[in-house]
Amino acid sequence: MSTLIRGGLVVNATGAVPADVLVDGEKIAALLAPGFPIEADRTVDASGKYVIPGGVDAHTHMEMPFGGTFSADTFATGTTAAAWGGTTTIIDFAVQVKGTSLLTTLDKWHAKADGNCAVDYGFHMIVSDVNETSLKEMESCIDAGVNTFKMFMAYPGVFYATDGEILRAMQKARETGATIMMHAENGIAIDQLVAQALAAGRTDPVEHGLTRPAELEGEATSRAITLAKVTGSPLYVVHLSAAQALDAVARARDTGQNVFAETCPQYLYLSLEDLARPDFEGAKYVASPPLRPREHQSELWRGLRTNDLSVVSTDHCPFCFKDQKELGRGDFSKIPNGMPGVEHRVDLLHQGVVKGEISLERWVEISSTTPARMFGLHPRKGVIAPGADADIVVYDPQTRQTISAATHHMNVDYSAYEGMELTGRVDTVLSRGRVVVDGSGFHGAVGHGRFLARELNQYLI
Amino acid sequence: MSTLIRGGLVVNATGAVPADVLVDGEKIAALLAPGFPIEADRTVDASGKYVIPGGVDAHTHMEMPFGGTFSADTFATGTTAAAWGGTTTIIDFAVQVKGTSLLTTLDKWHAKADGNCAVDYGFHMIVSDVNETSLKEMESCIDAGVNTFKMFMAYPGVFYATDGEILRAMQKARETGATIMMHAENGIAIDQLVAQALAAGRTDPVEHGLTRPAELEGEATSRAITLAKVTGSPLYVVHLSAAQALDAVARARDTGQNVFAETCPQYLYLSLEDLARPDFEGAKYVASPPLRPREHQSELWRGLRTNDLSVVSTDHCPFCFKDQKELGRGDFSKIPNGMPGVEHRVDLLHQGVVKGEISLERWVEISSTTPARMFGLHPRKGVIAPGADADIVVYDPQTRQTISAATHHMNVDYSAYEGMELTGRVDTVLSRGRVVVDGSGFHGAVGHGRFLARELNQYLI
Amino acid sequence: MSTLIRGGLVVNATGAVPADVLVDGEKIAALLAPGFPIEADRTVDASGKYVIPGGVDAHTHMEMPFGGTFSADTFATGTTAAAWGGTTTIIDFAVQVKGTSLLTTLDKWHAKADGNCAVDYGFHMIVSDVNETSLKEMESCIDAGVNTFKMFMAYPGVFYATDGEILRAMQKARETGATIMMHAENGIAIDQLVAQALAAGRTDPVEHGLTRPAELEGEATSRAITLAKVTGSPLYVVHLSAAQALDAVARARDTGQNVFAETCPQYLYLSLEDLARPDFEGAKYVASPPLRPREHQSELWRGLRTNDLSVVSTDHCPFCFKDQKELGRGDFSKIPNGMPGVEHRVDLLHQGVVKGEISLERWVEISSTTPARMFGLHPRKGVIAPGADADIVVYDPQTRQTISAATHHMNVDYSAYEGMELTGRVDTVLSRGRVVVDGSGFHGAVGHGRFLARELNQYLI
Amino acid sequence: MSTLIRGGLVVNATGAVPADVLVDGEKIAALLAPGFPIEADRTVDASGKYVIPGGVDAHTHMEMPFGGTFSADTFATGTTAAAWGGTTTIIDFAVQVKGTSLLTTLDKWHAKADGNCAVDYGFHMIVSDVNETSLKEMESCIDAGVNTFKMFMAYPGVFYATDGEILRAMQKARETGATIMMHAENGIAIDQLVAQALAAGRTDPVEHGLTRPAELEGEATSRAITLAKVTGSPLYVVHLSAAQALDAVARARDTGQNVFAETCPQYLYLSLEDLARPDFEGAKYVASPPLRPREHQSELWRGLRTNDLSVVSTDHCPFCFKDQKELGRGDFSKIPNGMPGVEHRVDLLHQGVVKGEISLERWVEISSTTPARMFGLHPRKGVIAPGADADIVVYDPQTRQTISAATHHMNVDYSAYEGMELTGRVDTVLSRGRVVVDGSGFHGAVGHGRFLARELNQYLI
Repeated sequence: MSTLIRGGLVVNATGAVPADVLVDGEKIAALLAPGFPIEADRTVDASGKYVIPGGVDAHTHMEMPFGGTFSADTFATGTTAAAWGGTTTIIDFAVQVKGTSLLTTLDKWHAKADGNCAVDYGFHMIVSDVNETSLKEMESCIDAGVNTFKMFMAYPGVFYATDGEILRAMQKARETGATIMMHAENGIAIDQLVAQALAAGRTDPVEHGLTRPAELEGEATSRAITLAKVTGSPLYVVHLSAAQALDAVARARDTGQNVFAETCPQYLYLSLEDLARPDFEGAKYVASPPLRPREHQSELWRGLRTNDLSVVSTDHCPFCFKDQKELGRGDFSKIPNGMPGVEHRVDLLHQGVVKGEISLERWVEISSTTPARMFGLHPRKGVIAPGADADIVVYDPQTRQTISAATHHMNVDYSAYEGMELTGRVDTVLSRGRVVVDGSGFHGAVGHGRFLARELNQYLI
Repeated sequence: MSTLIRGGLVVNATGAVPADVLVDGEKIAALLAPGFPIEADRTVDASGKYVIPGGVDAHTHMEMPFGGTFSADTFATGTTAAAWGGTTTIIDFAVQVKGTSLLTTLDKWHAKADGNCAVDYGFHMIVSDVNETSLKEMESCIDAGVNTFKMFMAYPGVFYATDGEILRAMQKARETGATIMMHAENGIAIDQLVAQALAAGRTDPVEHGLTRPAELEGEATSRAITLAKVTGSPLYVVHLSAAQALDAVARARDTGQNVFAETCPQYLYLSLEDLARPDFEGAKYVASPPLRPREHQSELWRGLRTNDLSVVSTDHCPFCFKDQKELGRGDFSKIPNGMPGVEHRVDLLHQGVVKGEISLERWVEISSTTPARMFGLHPRKGVIAPGADADIVVYDPQTRQTISAATHHMNVDYSAYEGMELTGRVDTVLSRGRVVVDGSGFHGAVGHGRFLARELNQYLI
Repeated sequence: MSTLIRGGLVVNATGAVPADVLVDGEKIAALLAPGFPIEADRTVDASGKYVIPGGVDAHTHMEMPFGGTFSADTFATGTTAAAWGGTTTIIDFAVQVKGTSLLTTLDKWHAKADGNCAVDYGFHMIVSDVNETSLKEMESCIDAGVNTFKMFMAYPGVFYATDGEILRAMQKARETGATIMMHAENGIAIDQLVAQALAAGRTDPVEHGLTRPAELEGEATSRAITLAKVTGSPLYVVHLSAAQALDAVARARDTGQNVFAETCPQYLYLSLEDLARPDFEGAKYVASPPLRPREHQSELWRGLRTNDLSVVSTDHCPFCFKDQKELGRGDFSKIPNGMPGVEHRVDLLHQGVVKGEISLERWVEISSTTPARMFGLHPRKGVIAPGADADIVVYDPQTRQTISAATHHMNVDYSAYEGMELTGRVDTVLSRGRVVVDGSGFHGAVGHGRFLARELNQYLI
Repeated sequence: MSTLIRGGLVVNATGAVPADVLVDGEKIAALLAPGFPIEADRTVDASGKYVIPGGVDAHTHMEMPFGGTFSADTFATGTTAAAWGGTTTIIDFAVQVKGTSLLTTLDKWHAKADGNCAVDYGFHMIVSDVNETSLKEMESCIDAGVNTFKMFMAYPGVFYATDGEILRAMQKARETGATIMMHAENGIAIDQLVAQALAAGRTDPVEHGLTRPAELEGEATSRAITLAKVTGSPLYVVHLSAAQALDAVARARDTGQNVFAETCPQYLYLSLEDLARPDFEGAKYVASPPLRPREHQSELWRGLRTNDLSVVSTDHCPFCFKDQKELGRGDFSKIPNGMPGVEHRVDLLHQGVVKGEISLERWVEISSTTPARMFGLHPRKGVIAPGADADIVVYDPQTRQTISAATHHMNVDYSAYEGMELTGRVDTVLSRGRVVVDGSGFHGAVGHGRFLARELNQYLI
């Protein structure tokens, strides 16, 4: 079965050209000058539209266990929502429980996801327990296509790793070519501030933000960078939210150190003011790092322009307001951490193009090409090129839409962007050659998505 | 006439994919999965080779008047040498003489180049005289496809522009979308040092380097950046050679200011030691800014990795050692400034790949894609994509070669890289669909090259 | 004649101790533990008061020629006002007119000042003309006790020196141990902005500020620092007003370069808003560099704390509002540049102590000790120590006063600080052992002040 | 009993003046113009010599317990050696053992020191255990004149404090006006490197240096600075040794944050090469942080000039080579950490004056005045002024001496500076008015030294 996408503007990270795209089976077979004489089984009209590589969301948490509950999207509902939003690849996190094996953990996550995804998916591995066994198991994970290991400088007693453990894991990363991903907040210091706030009776959601000051994200980011330098390992800082952390990343990159960072749409569009919404509504906006004062946003946009921020992922981790966020009423520290977002990332970043914050090409780069390169999926994903998987989004840059929980496809009872008006929307989505979304609805299938065994990152600066 | 380039690894700036390339007439018609069933009039076998967009050398000076003589390459000899070296586009400089008109100048340069080039070419305009007339004429130049205006903070009495003149030109650039290119050395201070050296009887070529300290390039770069900031204009710093200047560029870019810089192969591979060669041989290495102490080189490579240096051009401006460089024997300040290089840029930068300094993609980016984007030639140049001009180089990454004046094609009696051994060499070169170089020799023609009216730069950071 | 100052808190730059001070003739003879049994001809009761070294104002312009007029204070009126305000030393500027000799200039200024000053005074030399003769004359000036040479990067056509001239003067400074003082604003670029404003009909005093952006002070400061670095000369930046310039100074000092800067009270207390006062009242606030937006003030206070700003001088240069400032009505560029201030510096800086911006010791340091050390007057001036000149201020830290032109002693018809309430006031002033001001009035005399032949600066960082 | 010191150059931190100094009992009674007619019981001839305030060594460890042994100097021997070297005040560290009380600890240290010191002494408190009780006890310590609390980011399991504990202690410091002193090395990461070295059979003393990279001192310093910023507390970084740490301090100070740092003579004069001496001799040079590669030294001298390093202390903590350093043969991690130095600090720093690294005044400032101010002893100590304690050193700047264990007075069998030739030596030392050292020998007495209850630091930047 072949498909010809006619008449669009093909936008890759390094430039936009009017071209037709021929899909043959699951792959892109050809990029053709417009009107090139060729036949196909099916034609998609992309006139007036962009033809872009499907989005790659490198940071999601489907059905993630958290404090006795689970994030509300299953792999089935979450990847379906992703497809609706033009994201055709997710990389989710397998979560090692302390005292258990990395490989068992990986099996467990395969059991959850395999056969249940609407789009392709890969895994990162959260390492909670650094010891000889788990360091050895990292090698097996890499062989199994999972070569990115997330560690936490936050959450003492849960995921927290000591600087010594981080150092050892980074040495292993250096040795194997793997990459350490870091949640960079000084959780040890933060825990004191949290305890002091609770002891003082300050229990509202906004305290989540006030007890996690931006300086302590900057500090942890600097520390992770130094440990990476000492070990000669690359570093990928997840969900960077604070100007101080960005500054640390920029300075390291200026010296040529292989430090990368992602931010998330919530840090670009939402702020501490949302966390301070009355009547416990702030709980909808609790995630870590917390939403920051508004002045951080322009710094983050600048970071995206200057490539000090290389990727935008969602950290999608939805918890329902009614049942789940409720767990933290009266104690902000018990509010499940996380926000929904996998469906809206591509659209939200397109607003950056509309407002002139980033170029068209940069939009594609940060939402698809760079995450694909960074995480060993390129040129299979992240580019419109012959031989690449036919993960293609036809994007309509003009139509306007309004975000609402009433219409979104994520399995969660609120939207963090409720009522926000956007310019542009996803028109048609192909996942490995199959039209999974078009104007008439969802035509994909749970089980269509395949596991992606990823290559090692060979990306430089 | 169609050509099919089969079996190569197509390397674009954002990634490499095995693909076939179909050329139809002067344009690329299609990128095809390897072995895609299609016919063409002619087939080029690229197995085991890279297929890359033809090089874009954004800084050359063919038959440039300098102190009573002319640079030794004509547009004919220079562009032929460029083709031999895999460069299919040059951008040369029209040079306004004080008191004359920009448009007349442009006519004069068209008269030199039109019909005499073996590859496509564009012009930048050197503005020596800033006044109401010339500022107005800038608009006409832009309409005529020449929208980049070079100014000099060096060479008082010749090309030197005052900060006030620079400010006015930048305001005009801001208003029109043009870009100011800057030779950033503090010529006023340097002239004092030169006069003092000569007065003290220090006349050897090495004094050229000693009287132009790196700090004064750093200073002028900072100053140009500030003037660009005050006016809201982008800035392109030409032939950056010093760590101090790079530092100024990096800091500006970290703040999101649209400041760009190029370096040249000579600053990456040669050093002040070459300027100090005995028996007046140092004269071969006299160019401005001067070759720097060796420790600057690693900084420049780092800048290329971090994208604080966006482009590598040659500043090709050859003067024969026998007749021309000789003019400065006994007075280094009279040595014609410039070095040959247009033929070897692509090869020399490939050594960066060989040595692990830059990635394969970055090689293409700095030698072709970014100069094309920066100077309004993209996606016509700088990319292997349908619709682009079929300026294509088949590059053999394995074969070794040795640089020598005995074998090079530039019209100059020495090579700055004499005896240097390289890994990789140009195999086949297409210019707008025509095979101009292959294993059997040169098949291009003077007159084949066309003038490129360039678009305004819409490149961000 | 001996004087014993009893019961005060002697405040030197490195600490405050309760002590009695014995003055014998013109000198301090002893610092004594409180109540030390000794007799004197006269006793001053300093109980509850500070005993501090007399202020050193290193930047004044008495009867300075400017655009056909003269600054309104003569040496007689200006130094009398200084004495009233606790300043017992001024350093004024001799102004070389282009084409004239430095030594003649010095004679001219001696003719103005000698026998006409109420307190001691020295001279800096403004070098308008750099050539072999004037460079040579610098040596004679140094021998004559004038070893600090001010140059201008502003005021093209008047005082402006090219970077080459600055470089040569700095080389001479390096050779002789002299110091170059710099008015650091990019006057060449500013002149364009001024001309454009006037051409556009923007003629109000506030345009003086808008056409001299802070970035162009930062730029010139950076440039002067680089020239100083290239020549190995120290640098003293006068009247620093902008955060950007402070940043350049701080970075240079962090590397150990001998760069110093002064700011002035007007930059600490007044702002661009004052320049924008209606009805031409803004003209009262025209000085160069211009008053800056208010946010620069906290940066300057920080610089005073961190010693990136080492000195506070006044740049006292009063022009009467009625007759003189009037010259620029309808053309802000014709408003005589300068503000009165010599009388209020010590009091205004004391407010920094009151508000906790600086310590008591730092107040003495920036207003007396450091200028004395910087300009080769220490330990004769700037310290309460045996052997030092008995220039002593008994300062009452509690009494409140209100600044007003109605009560000040400067010969000018307005005060820039009209109505400002201050805590603390000068109680008694001794100049070389003579009580010149006390509660009953002025007891000094024009002619009492002597010329100070200054030593070379041996101050490090 | 009164003493008159005649004919010297009195050097205080802000300037040198020829003056006589009258001592009456334990205090300085007067500073007098040279030859001032006054009588005294005894006269000291200081002609041709400097008269400086006695040294204040703010960092010593007398008879400190360490891994089953004690540092080799008792308070008696150590303070006697201090006096010989011109240091008339030491501040030693009381060491809380985990699980014990701060006040009991203080009592224990008083029991060791009281009646056993030859010069005056104070205490800092090492806090090993942060909990509600010890935080409360900090207040009592402050009342008892011990208001500086040292914490460790190194030595996990021994003195190590978590970031949460540091944060809490800093909050208490903020609340009370106390200062936290920090040993800033990332001990958690270092412990991994140490374990890896030992596991790999790398056991020589030099490994002590190699397993404690400078980056990890830089990191910890940055982290401590951030924690101080978050809490609003001042910070004093002890024994800073690395350029990276200095850079962190300088940047913080540039923003006006109250961060201070001391270095030690060993980091200015010795290097990693000493740690690498063969035959276990490197053990003599084991201290933490370790001696650094030689290139750090010039950075530290620069820091002393720019005041980014405010104090030089010794971290005097001697262990005999024969018996004590021997404990770590075959396992560098068991070598007792520490070097002797209290006797030579003033002399070693004077070499900085001799070599032009620092001025005469700066010598006094970093070795006496600033530590006195920083630690609440000024103006009692650190200055030659009426009312100050008569702790006075007459220093002969010309005489040469050679350091040797054969002649030093410290109770340790080696000198880290064996054979080093110095210019200048201590001539006469007064401690609270008593001549304790002069040309004829030691005239002091164990028991003469008194405990100094210190004021809170009110020093700014």
